Amino acid sequence: MAQPVSLSEFSIISRYFNRPGLSANQSEHSFVRLGIGDDCALIKPSPNKLLAVSLDVLNTGVHFPENAPADLIAQRALAVNLSDVAAMGATPVGFTLGLSLPEVDEAWLEKFSEGLSFISQTYQCPLIGGDLTLGPLSIAIQAHGEVDGDKALTRSGAKAGDLVYVSGQLGAAAAALEVLDKENKTSLELKLMEAFYKPVPRIELGQKLQSLASSCIDISDGLLADLAHIAESSSVTLEIEAHRVPVNTLLKEMQTKQSSLMLALTGGDDYELAFTIPPEYKKAVVEVAEQAGCQLSCIGRVLPMSSAGETKETVRCLDEYENVLEVQSLGYQHF
Amino acid sequence: MAQPVSLSEFSIISRYFNRPGLSANQSEHSFVRLGIGDDCALIKPSPNKLLAVSLDVLNTGVHFPENAPADLIAQRALAVNLSDVAAMGATPVGFTLGLSLPEVDEAWLEKFSEGLSFISQTYQCPLIGGDLTLGPLSIAIQAHGEVDGDKALTRSGAKAGDLVYVSGQLGAAAAALEVLDKENKTSLELKLMEAFYKPVPRIELGQKLQSLASSCIDISDGLLADLAHIAESSSVTLEIEAHRVPVNTLLKEMQTKQSSLMLALTGGDDYELAFTIPPEYKKAVVEVAEQAGCQLSCIGRVLPMSSAGETKETVRCLDEYENVLEVQSLGYQHF
Repeated sequence: MAQPVSLSEFSIISRYFNRPGLSANQSEHSFVRLGIGDDCALIKPSPNKLLAVSLDVLNTGVHFPENAPADLIAQRALAVNLSDVAAMGATPVGFTLGLSLPEVDEAWLEKFSEGLSFISQTYQCPLIGGDLTLGPLSIAIQAHGEVDGDKALTRSGAKAGDLVYVSGQLGAAAAALEVLDKENKTSLELKLMEAFYKPVPRIELGQKLQSLASSCIDISDGLLADLAHIAESSSVTLEIEAHRVPVNTLLKEMQTKQSSLMLALTGGDDYELAFTIPPEYKKAVVEVAEQAGCQLSCIGRVLPMSSAGETKETVRCLDEYENVLEVQSLGYQHF
Repeated sequence: MAQPVSLSEFSIISRYFNRPGLSANQSEHSFVRLGIGDDCALIKPSPNKLLAVSLDVLNTGVHFPENAPADLIAQRALAVNLSDVAAMGATPVGFTLGLSLPEVDEAWLEKFSEGLSFISQTYQCPLIGGDLTLGPLSIAIQAHGEVDGDKALTRSGAKAGDLVYVSGQLGAAAAALEVLDKENKTSLELKLMEAFYKPVPRIELGQKLQSLASSCIDISDGLLADLAHIAESSSVTLEIEAHRVPVNTLLKEMQTKQSSLMLALTGGDDYELAFTIPPEYKKAVVEVAEQAGCQLSCIGRVLPMSSAGETKETVRCLDEYENVLEVQSLGYQHF
């Protein structure tokens, strides 16, 4: 499958990637019929399931600092992809890796492989194939998950009257961006780094929301920006009450109330799930929060699509006095 | 699915990628239940089929020159991936794209999208999802194909007594590498460029070989290097008669006989199929060549694995006098 493959590339793959605890083997992973080492990997999807696939690319200097530890880069790269699988309510079954490296650094590869193995084992999602090639450090990962066809969570099912929820606490990963390159970090700053490098893909939560949520998305660009995607796909307006948004408690020690709130509303990289449910499921969501062991906060409601002139209103954010809260940008702008 | 997504990124995707003739739509592509624009794409695999997946990454300055035309980069990137699908005997069903761009250049994007659409339509393989992000120009593509479980062509089935074949003519793409950056190319050199930028994935050939070939691989690193992969996976030695290897006729006008042969034997990027068949299928292969409209040459035979001391012999290459032909390197070394 690797396109420019040499024998030495093969020994790298065999030493660091095709190894127990990371790569798929047929006895443990019946989903995988043929793993690393042929032109393609062969997958046997379960009958009556849909395959959910998500390809994300993480580039050095863009998605992580150039000197970032290899194990943390690997953990983040795979976790970020699994977060997309979680947002569909799907169960991870395997991933492919396209890794571009400027040089062969065995110590780096060992750490990278360790980080990858850790997340792979935690979420039972083995490596099934990929490509190793020369280039600026870049990690392309395609995660594969399975989900019952009629239970997949999409962005397009939110209806007026539904309630808006978000999992976990927000803003820590965005705050980490401000201290990413800082030397001699405080213990508080180190905790922020954890939030950035070790996002928790909400796999179990996504699965439990299958029969409850009318729409779901994972927060990669910022809460409001990602809620806007639900609003657009569902042709509705979402009204968010800012004071109900769960700001990460770490931020309270280092930011003003206002800047903490802005990080929670518009900072990216949280990889929590935002979703909508019909109001009759309010009680069920409390149970799901207990079962999945994560905080779930009701932060607003779904309204019929409203427009101001020709502009459709996707997300309206209110402060505690029910005044419209102005935000400069809903989230991360890439280009 | 895109991880750092902005509204402007969304408009790029909608303008250049989510468009008729390129992206999947449910009425035409029943395989795709949900295409571009959610956290994951949703695929409905056909019952009783295996899914063949191949992820390849092409980086600027490594896999194509930095000033290469965008439409040709796109064509090559997708064709190279489809070649892996062909090598399994599978039928393409869709692909995902992870595109890293240093900047938004609309003219470049338009050409890139055109090139991608051309190959996508030619092989009925629509775009189903992906990621668009900032970074040095890099193209990660995962191609997906379907194949009957017991008919997938792997590298591991070659048996002593089988014959070794290769499709097409070899060496032109490798010769093109030598003139890639040259200005004012001759008409001959321009033809070589075609071979480099427009490899033909042998989809139909792979499908027709399903019930004939005992092993198959696509030639990306060089004929001998890729045959060595078959030899290793199958635990056999392949004996190749160099004078029967089909050297591309273009090379005869510009290279010595010896250098042409070396390009055909060890130059990469041809994306032809090399395969083995039991000898009783020799006649059937002639028919396949006619049906698939491509030259198929018998270039050697499969022997039991032979060893010289502790070193296993994978590929033995003979000249026309049956002397062992020494080659410096079997193929492309990446690191």
